[in-house]
Amino acid sequence: MLLELFPIGASAVALVTALSFGIWLRRQPSGGEDVRRISEAVREGAVAFIRKEVGIIIPLAAIIIALIAFFIHPYSALAFALGAGLSILAGIISMLTCVSAAPKAAIATSKGIGATLLTAFRAGATAGMVITSMALLAISTLYLLFPNPVLMAGAGFGASLVALFIRAGGGIYTKAADLGADLVGKLEAGIPEDDPRNPATIADNVGDNVGDAAGMGADIYESYVVTLLASMLLGGIVGRADLTILPLLVGAAGLLATVVGVVVVTGRSPENPMTPLNISFIVSAILGVILGSLVAWLTVGIGGLGIAIIISIILGVVLVPLIQRITDYYTSYSYPPVKRITASTSVGHSANILEGIGQGLKSTLPLALSIVAAIIASYYVGFNLTNNPILGIYCTALTTMAMLSLSGVVLSIDSFGPVSDNAGGIVEMTGMGDENRKLTDRLDAVGNTAKATTKGFAIASAALAAIAMIQAFQKEAEAIYGALDYTLSNPVVVVGLLVGALLPFYISSRLIAAVSSTATKIVDEVRRQFREKKGILEGVEKPDYGRCVGIATSGAIRELLTPAAIVALTPIIVGVILGPAAVTGVLTGGVLSGLYLAYHMANSGAAWDNAKKYLEVLGRKKTPEHAIAVVGDLVGDPYKDTAGPSLNTVIKVLNTVSIVAVSAFIGLL
Amino acid sequence: MLLELFPIGASAVALVTALSFGIWLRRQPSGGEDVRRISEAVREGAVAFIRKEVGIIIPLAAIIIALIAFFIHPYSALAFALGAGLSILAGIISMLTCVSAAPKAAIATSKGIGATLLTAFRAGATAGMVITSMALLAISTLYLLFPNPVLMAGAGFGASLVALFIRAGGGIYTKAADLGADLVGKLEAGIPEDDPRNPATIADNVGDNVGDAAGMGADIYESYVVTLLASMLLGGIVGRADLTILPLLVGAAGLLATVVGVVVVTGRSPENPMTPLNISFIVSAILGVILGSLVAWLTVGIGGLGIAIIISIILGVVLVPLIQRITDYYTSYSYPPVKRITASTSVGHSANILEGIGQGLKSTLPLALSIVAAIIASYYVGFNLTNNPILGIYCTALTTMAMLSLSGVVLSIDSFGPVSDNAGGIVEMTGMGDENRKLTDRLDAVGNTAKATTKGFAIASAALAAIAMIQAFQKEAEAIYGALDYTLSNPVVVVGLLVGALLPFYISSRLIAAVSSTATKIVDEVRRQFREKKGILEGVEKPDYGRCVGIATSGAIRELLTPAAIVALTPIIVGVILGPAAVTGVLTGGVLSGLYLAYHMANSGAAWDNAKKYLEVLGRKKTPEHAIAVVGDLVGDPYKDTAGPSLNTVIKVLNTVSIVAVSAFIGLL
Repeated sequence: MLLELFPIGASAVALVTALSFGIWLRRQPSGGEDVRRISEAVREGAVAFIRKEVGIIIPLAAIIIALIAFFIHPYSALAFALGAGLSILAGIISMLTCVSAAPKAAIATSKGIGATLLTAFRAGATAGMVITSMALLAISTLYLLFPNPVLMAGAGFGASLVALFIRAGGGIYTKAADLGADLVGKLEAGIPEDDPRNPATIADNVGDNVGDAAGMGADIYESYVVTLLASMLLGGIVGRADLTILPLLVGAAGLLATVVGVVVVTGRSPENPMTPLNISFIVSAILGVILGSLVAWLTVGIGGLGIAIIISIILGVVLVPLIQRITDYYTSYSYPPVKRITASTSVGHSANILEGIGQGLKSTLPLALSIVAAIIASYYVGFNLTNNPILGIYCTALTTMAMLSLSGVVLSIDSFGPVSDNAGGIVEMTGMGDENRKLTDRLDAVGNTAKATTKGFAIASAALAAIAMIQAFQKEAEAIYGALDYTLSNPVVVVGLLVGALLPFYISSRLIAAVSSTATKIVDEVRRQFREKKGILEGVEKPDYGRCVGIATSGAIRELLTPAAIVALTPIIVGVILGPAAVTGVLTGGVLSGLYLAYHMANSGAAWDNAKKYLEVLGRKKTPEHAIAVVGDLVGDPYKDTAGPSLNTVIKVLNTVSIVAVSAFIGLL
Repeated sequence: MLLELFPIGASAVALVTALSFGIWLRRQPSGGEDVRRISEAVREGAVAFIRKEVGIIIPLAAIIIALIAFFIHPYSALAFALGAGLSILAGIISMLTCVSAAPKAAIATSKGIGATLLTAFRAGATAGMVITSMALLAISTLYLLFPNPVLMAGAGFGASLVALFIRAGGGIYTKAADLGADLVGKLEAGIPEDDPRNPATIADNVGDNVGDAAGMGADIYESYVVTLLASMLLGGIVGRADLTILPLLVGAAGLLATVVGVVVVTGRSPENPMTPLNISFIVSAILGVILGSLVAWLTVGIGGLGIAIIISIILGVVLVPLIQRITDYYTSYSYPPVKRITASTSVGHSANILEGIGQGLKSTLPLALSIVAAIIASYYVGFNLTNNPILGIYCTALTTMAMLSLSGVVLSIDSFGPVSDNAGGIVEMTGMGDENRKLTDRLDAVGNTAKATTKGFAIASAALAAIAMIQAFQKEAEAIYGALDYTLSNPVVVVGLLVGALLPFYISSRLIAAVSSTATKIVDEVRRQFREKKGILEGVEKPDYGRCVGIATSGAIRELLTPAAIVALTPIIVGVILGPAAVTGVLTGGVLSGLYLAYHMANSGAAWDNAKKYLEVLGRKKTPEHAIAVVGDLVGDPYKDTAGPSLNTVIKVLNTVSIVAVSAFIGLL
């Protein structure tokens, strides 16, 4: 019982820390009327977006809850509600924290980089801890209520539904607003980014929050919940209660480690803004391994299995910086890939596009090798030290769980990015001065690196979470239907694989098209405002920010519905017609192409972005090369912020829908 | 015995028809000194490329033959030699036919479109019939020598090795030469395409032959051989000699149907140049079904199995125009996708790139649905009418075989394209006049459509051939190692899938980079010639064509070696370390991501190309929109002509290597 309460205790500690950070942030000066006016507009826009999202999610969730309660089990419906509800709550809290922290970080620029960094980081840490502790809380509460992972699986579906809406919807929103603002503002009217005369500028800033911050949060929350559920399901299949609860304890250990890691960051001005963030991560990682090993020892003792579990935890923790380094190598301008893309801008547009695509495609190799090595290593220690193949699979899932147990600190460093970005926007819009802007630009550059590397983390963890869940799904389906033919010689499995591998390609095309069509509407609106109110560009008339926010919001949601329905219904249709073996194919196929397509898109996009930034750093902003690099960045935007990250949720939604609906997969054919 | 001789007889009929076409072509007038000089230069360049390729392939093949003879079986080594040898022979014959037909088609422009079309088509038909009959001949001869499909599998590996070199090497060559010629010629020097002052123009024309014609031929030859082998292996597993020989008979039926189909094309000038090509295909398809059903009836009689086989043949034949229509829809400017890409050029570069990528990604959906429907339908008729699941799988393979049995006519229509393209080049270079050029442009446009749709056919058939071979591989591995765990719950299978799905992404990045680096070298050379010999651009001095041909040849081959080694060695390494189940994962993973990535790249590339052409048709050649469309086309070039089509051979090489090396897959871990 003490063990069962540990995750709830850890969540409470993290939430209290988050609360104290929130109070600390509240006490920071928030600036004069002009600052407040802008941040209020951003807040309103973000709230409008979330409200509209929630307005669709709630009735949809109500229908799903009723269906689950009626056809499957009331407990599953409750799990769905809790999984979805806490995800929304965590999203709202963390987004509002980031939004309200941005003006405070902007004001803190007058006190130096240390103070600004601390403000932005604590906002990020609040978001990071709220999201992970809510995820842990959702599953540990459910486990206390009914310690049966099968009934708890609805929580994963709930988390997925929310993540799909926030991640993909936010992804469309942020890039449509960004593109719309840039196309008319920068290119046609020739005004700088974040200029208050641009009617789309608030929508753009809202986009940073709903896309980058809330989207990433919902994505990681979902991976966390899915991995917890998958490893608990596998523990249940082994038939040992200690193995069922262990994933929760590993999560709790990582969460406590995260609390210590984020508390050690101080307001002292660092030489390199990355240093305190790195220290925060290293502290969390080392403590995570120690505490994780401790709970493993307390739960299963030191035998073969205990050692296998500890090695699996270490593997998972090591995977985090490894994947971040790989991603950094392919996306930061300190290394050859982005330098090569930058050099290609002197050849021409096509060379720049091809080089960016090529580097992104290439980056999939080291990612794949890391993931494959982690899977093989954890499986073999688990299998060889216990002589039980299912324990090998269980150890693979635990590696993923250990990786995700550090989500709190990863998200802290990630959410720091949009706060700095927004603070920069406020500095620009209120005309605070060049020195302050340079400071936020420096932090924004760090934030951009963190954003890119966190995307790598999110993609890898989504794939690993899905792989764990696919294993659990197969066992659950066999528990219902008896032995099933999951072999690659079953044509039904092959057909499922073909359908699953298709989805990331097709959904990407829908999402890229969604950004274009929504951006076009924003462009039309901005042009209309410039045309009808001549005073806007002269700075004597106020633009109507709200209209652009409204267009981005409704556009994003409308464009999202069809792809969301396709993703959610495909496994159900395949399952009803062809049965659970075909569904396993769909789930696996989705991971296989989704993993690499997402990583390619995220890295190509980030690399183009940084090639452009590199030219700016080199002082070549108004050159033809820079103009070419800007096109690369525009191509990369929907790649890295819409299609790429949305595939994470696509991969997982397939799994959570399937595990909940498994009993309907009767296979008519 | 009569049955066994039928494929050899059909091959002989096709070869005699090809020979008579060749003699007819020889008799056509080949023009004056200027025409001959150019066509001689193209011929020399093409021969230089093939000679260099063969110079690498022969020693490599000798080593492989020795290894196979020593470690596996002398018969397998013989099969390898025959499969590779006839592939090279078919490639050389068909390439030389196309090269020598181009000047004759150029001369025929003076006689009108009917005569030009007939010349180009008969050259294409010669290539198409030589390639398919050689493939059929290779396997039917081996079957007469030793009727054991397992020993014959080496032929597939031989075909794969040649295809990898010709397809990927030719793909790098053609686009590097094209890009190099365009970047300096069109953009810097401002001279038109195919201008004789451009030192890279001969290399560009050689590229059309080695990339488009020889590459496609080797690719289809490989798919044909692989599918024959896979279906014969499956027939062998059922243990019935009639089912082992039936795939050969279906191939022979299709080949005879093709002979009739190509003979009906006359020199009458058609309203629409597409009409005679369509008639040729329809005649072949209808006759193919009739003859195919006849051989099925003669071989297995009319029972459940006979009906299942006839339905499978019809499915395969229907798949050909279906996939061609889908590809045409996404790549021809008569339909919305390319119109939308064309419209996006008025927004800007990024919109054009994103729209092209989006449409290519989208096109994977109908392709996937067609393939999935064909697999499900053929499997279910085969299974339900015989109550034997292996016969279901066998019928799936037969559907692929029926599809490929029409390769001859598909290749005839495809090879027609490069001949027209080259004829246009000769018309331009010898200054024959605008009317003649317009005529070849019209045929070239038809050829472009055919090229794009044939790519769709080649991609789908590569994937289906691989799927059939994967099934055969699994059975073979089990014959050696006993029961194996091919399930998706085996982590080793999952790891194999992850590795296999990675390969197309990674190899694409290598091939795209290869085009860029080789093109850069050609650009440097062209610039050097323009700089050092001022008379070239004035038209008073001759450029050195040979140097550009040499750079393209050696660049293509050098850049190809590493990716080729990675593809060939990956299944062997995985097999030796992790065993045959993991290899099955690699093979399946390769098909899953390779199929969609290849189709996306081929279609995005062709769509950009045609968006540019559409603007030209609309008379908007010197507009800013056209300049944007040109960039799209340049991005699309390595997509559609290098990376995309090379993935076809990647998918199949994995399979043929694995089936030959299966006895080495001991699984050390």
